[in-house]
Amino acid sequence: MNRVPLKQINDADKAAMVAVLGNIFEHAPWVAEQAAARRPFVTLQSLHDAMTDAIRRAPHDQQLALIKGHPDLAGKAARAGALTAESTAEQASAGLDRLSNEEFEAFHRLNDAYKAKFGIPFIVCVRRHTKDSILHQFELRLKNDKAAEQDAALAEILRIGALRLDQLVESADRLKVSGRLSTHILDNHSGRPAAGVAIEFCEVSNAGAVTPLLRTVSNADGRTDKPLISERPVPIGRYEIRFSIGDYFARAGVAQADPRFLDVVPVRFAVAEPEGHYHVPLLATPWSYSTYRGS
Amino acid sequence: MNRVPLKQINDADKAAMVAVLGNIFEHAPWVAEQAAARRPFVTLQSLHDAMTDAIRRAPHDQQLALIKGHPDLAGKAARAGALTAESTAEQASAGLDRLSNEEFEAFHRLNDAYKAKFGIPFIVCVRRHTKDSILHQFELRLKNDKAAEQDAALAEILRIGALRLDQLVESADRLKVSGRLSTHILDNHSGRPAAGVAIEFCEVSNAGAVTPLLRTVSNADGRTDKPLISERPVPIGRYEIRFSIGDYFARAGVAQADPRFLDVVPVRFAVAEPEGHYHVPLLATPWSYSTYRGS
Amino acid sequence: MNRVPLKQINDADKAAMVAVLGNIFEHAPWVAEQAAARRPFVTLQSLHDAMTDAIRRAPHDQQLALIKGHPDLAGKAARAGALTAESTAEQASAGLDRLSNEEFEAFHRLNDAYKAKFGIPFIVCVRRHTKDSILHQFELRLKNDKAAEQDAALAEILRIGALRLDQLVESADRLKVSGRLSTHILDNHSGRPAAGVAIEFCEVSNAGAVTPLLRTVSNADGRTDKPLISERPVPIGRYEIRFSIGDYFARAGVAQADPRFLDVVPVRFAVAEPEGHYHVPLLATPWSYSTYRGS
Amino acid sequence: MNRVPLKQINDADKAAMVAVLGNIFEHAPWVAEQAAARRPFVTLQSLHDAMTDAIRRAPHDQQLALIKGHPDLAGKAARAGALTAESTAEQASAGLDRLSNEEFEAFHRLNDAYKAKFGIPFIVCVRRHTKDSILHQFELRLKNDKAAEQDAALAEILRIGALRLDQLVESADRLKVSGRLSTHILDNHSGRPAAGVAIEFCEVSNAGAVTPLLRTVSNADGRTDKPLISERPVPIGRYEIRFSIGDYFARAGVAQADPRFLDVVPVRFAVAEPEGHYHVPLLATPWSYSTYRGS
Repeated sequence: MNRVPLKQINDADKAAMVAVLGNIFEHAPWVAEQAAARRPFVTLQSLHDAMTDAIRRAPHDQQLALIKGHPDLAGKAARAGALTAESTAEQASAGLDRLSNEEFEAFHRLNDAYKAKFGIPFIVCVRRHTKDSILHQFELRLKNDKAAEQDAALAEILRIGALRLDQLVESADRLKVSGRLSTHILDNHSGRPAAGVAIEFCEVSNAGAVTPLLRTVSNADGRTDKPLISERPVPIGRYEIRFSIGDYFARAGVAQADPRFLDVVPVRFAVAEPEGHYHVPLLATPWSYSTYRGS
Repeated sequence: MNRVPLKQINDADKAAMVAVLGNIFEHAPWVAEQAAARRPFVTLQSLHDAMTDAIRRAPHDQQLALIKGHPDLAGKAARAGALTAESTAEQASAGLDRLSNEEFEAFHRLNDAYKAKFGIPFIVCVRRHTKDSILHQFELRLKNDKAAEQDAALAEILRIGALRLDQLVESADRLKVSGRLSTHILDNHSGRPAAGVAIEFCEVSNAGAVTPLLRTVSNADGRTDKPLISERPVPIGRYEIRFSIGDYFARAGVAQADPRFLDVVPVRFAVAEPEGHYHVPLLATPWSYSTYRGS
Repeated sequence: MNRVPLKQINDADKAAMVAVLGNIFEHAPWVAEQAAARRPFVTLQSLHDAMTDAIRRAPHDQQLALIKGHPDLAGKAARAGALTAESTAEQASAGLDRLSNEEFEAFHRLNDAYKAKFGIPFIVCVRRHTKDSILHQFELRLKNDKAAEQDAALAEILRIGALRLDQLVESADRLKVSGRLSTHILDNHSGRPAAGVAIEFCEVSNAGAVTPLLRTVSNADGRTDKPLISERPVPIGRYEIRFSIGDYFARAGVAQADPRFLDVVPVRFAVAEPEGHYHVPLLATPWSYSTYRGS
Repeated sequence: MNRVPLKQINDADKAAMVAVLGNIFEHAPWVAEQAAARRPFVTLQSLHDAMTDAIRRAPHDQQLALIKGHPDLAGKAARAGALTAESTAEQASAGLDRLSNEEFEAFHRLNDAYKAKFGIPFIVCVRRHTKDSILHQFELRLKNDKAAEQDAALAEILRIGALRLDQLVESADRLKVSGRLSTHILDNHSGRPAAGVAIEFCEVSNAGAVTPLLRTVSNADGRTDKPLISERPVPIGRYEIRFSIGDYFARAGVAQADPRFLDVVPVRFAVAEPEGHYHVPLLATPWSYSTYRGS
């Protein structure tokens, strides 16, 4: 999708502007309408702040309507294809469009319990989460009281809107909604970056299921050409990076045992800050390795 | 099983000695008989050398008969319970008594191919192997010629005999047939051994199946009370040690992210020298770890 | 010096026993005399406890006399050779017999300030200290009040006595007065202990002066045949171990840059617990190393 | 010194161009004159290549005159202030202007021995060296024969010229004559970059003398604001970086022993490739650290 230049939003008539920004907040074009009055925006951040202010200053009833305008997570609307395009893409990002029947039932039960207690749909900024961390959020937030949950729902809506805005609008500045997950591999046996190492990046569920997300190869600098995750939040969850260092050292002609003492090295870790910078390198010889949270 | 003191072997009449040592080499009491003439033995090693010499100096036909007296690996005799007690225990050590039908067929095919080519049963010192490394041996040795394979079969028979002898006889000395696999965990966050860390030690098949072998907990010195493997060969194969350092640091009151950056750390490695000493430690903080082949 | 068997102390007449143990506490044979009544001692620890009890239960005046019977640290008596043999050896252990004139003056001034404030000589268990840490103790203890300092002096006297007793008497048990400092070197380049590495162990003063204490070479297990320090307290102080890994890798035929990226690796650390076990290993390749406080 | 834009060199008349570039090669304005004919130069590299070609294609006598036009290293001309400005700055970079009398005599002797054997002055690109590595070069090159030494001298002259040219001329491209030495410090105790760590960067002579080159402090990213060395070759030699991690952890409120197990951590290494990228990080807790050659 081509981004819409900020200048175009500044220059458009109000209706055209609302046409562009009307879905930043789900079924709530009034947010864009109110922000229109504060044009022109020098930065994307100031446009974002104007929309955020509109929501924060809205009467409680209007805020509640905004909350209630959101679809159920992984709900029947999703199965029926009745979501906005934005919601569809977001729910797919955490695999909520590919639930097993058991998982669908679990979400259904939690949605019902949540609605029964709070009278609103459960809202979470799905792009910051994996399936497991959404279920964990469900559990945590079901313990809240009604007021706290309305605040929590609004906070999530603002996060969703900020991410949509950051993706939609082209500007010299960016909103601080993205994290980064990167790696590099250093060959401590010969004192240089390890080039050509096959890397498999996987998500790991609480139940232990391993889902490959990306396969790549380290470049001459021992890094991947692009970070494993960038330009978006790093979903809260558990991951494993698998480094095929046995093959690497074999290609380099380094003597190894048969079978190799180290072959595919798994590094398993979790992400807790979706907007954080996670650098998870591997320093390796055929007989040793270390890893750490770098920056 | 209580061990038989070396002195008792030295003092027994020849028939009694052969009764004790007759099964060190499968269906070949003549080995013990010939060794009897070289009594008394000051060390277990000298008894072992005498039996080994008897085999090495035997006429080719007798050697061939010795080879042919061995059962098929994972063969029908095993399923029918028709093995010697020693063979039964050995084949069980590598799980050859618990093969799936597919695996049983695979062994059957390889046994047949081997016998067709060499005219002898495939013999390997099973206690030095895992199922995967036995299959790897099959492949490698099927490429040999007949003479080389008779030598290989004899060498394996000597290994089997040495292990049986080391387990049967009590002596001040031991045969060098055992390896060792140990670990320890150092808490680099507070500069002391990590006590109370749950450790799971698993075998990993080539296909990726993970079989837990042992669950234990580190002691005050950060070690396990007994090595993970000792007093026997470390089977050639792939392993994983899983260290629950997230729980450890939580109990120690150390701040961690939620979810924890590191929780259960998997260290995956392979063993190539069954008689070697493998020390595979973990040096860890909540944000970093390293491991290496120590000694 | 040959140790005196505990049995001999148990069997001796009282005068002979006091002749042997009379100097465990400086100029205070009455401690041994009182302990004599509690013979026989099954363990060295029980002999030690009996002597300690005698001091703890002594009237205050007698305790004060015991304290005052001790010589000045690095004082004129030392220069004049008028110390007990035990004190002479102890003061030499921290180099107090080899002070420069400036250092002698510093100790003189501190001794005088201490005596002026507390009316007793400054007593410290010298074998647990280096020159720098003794000066640090002086500074800390000059801040105490009189009662606290008499307690501190008595505690140090008990430490001195325990060390003398542990060295003098032969018994199946030992007093817990010794620490240990050890190292080992692992070659992570080839996955084995690094044998034949030249090791220089030095004391480092606060002013940065480096005094070699020991030169040795790692054995086949990558360790030193004896710990760098054992069978005695590890003096509180700063140390450096220098590992000549450049020469080691050169002898092993490993390619290195010219000049070598790593050659003599210095590891600088301090000891705070004289009775602690300090293991300070080096894990190295020609391009990387790590070290840590192990156990 | 302001750089001269490449465009200005292209646009100047020949005399003005030679005025600017005449000293790129010592007392050899003819090199610039010949290169002038190949203007305009799109890149600095192509200007460099033109000058290099002029030297390579010059008759042997002219090359020899170029060589002989160079001053002695650390010679009497230097002491008398009779060098070109370029040579003065270069010789100062390795401390050749601050020799002790003993060192001056040593250089004098080596210069004489070299001239006696080869009939030319000893030329080396001083900016790529420390005093020790220059002396090492002297020793190595005194073993050459006359032809090899003329080649070596010419190669060094080209290196000197490339460095002078890269510093003098402003262009979109740069010559590949610079290396880089950088560091960063990671706090593995709390999983983040270590900010505010005092860093002392020193040169270490073969004799063990330590000369501080730079004192700095790590920034929020655990790095130094500028690399320790950049925009120039990293002189071949031995270095030590001293990281004050004890103070850092104290400020962070982390419990440490007294005295601290680790306080100022020295990392000693050598540089062999002046145009290489050396990254020498420290990963530390109060009880452990590791370092390696990174990139």
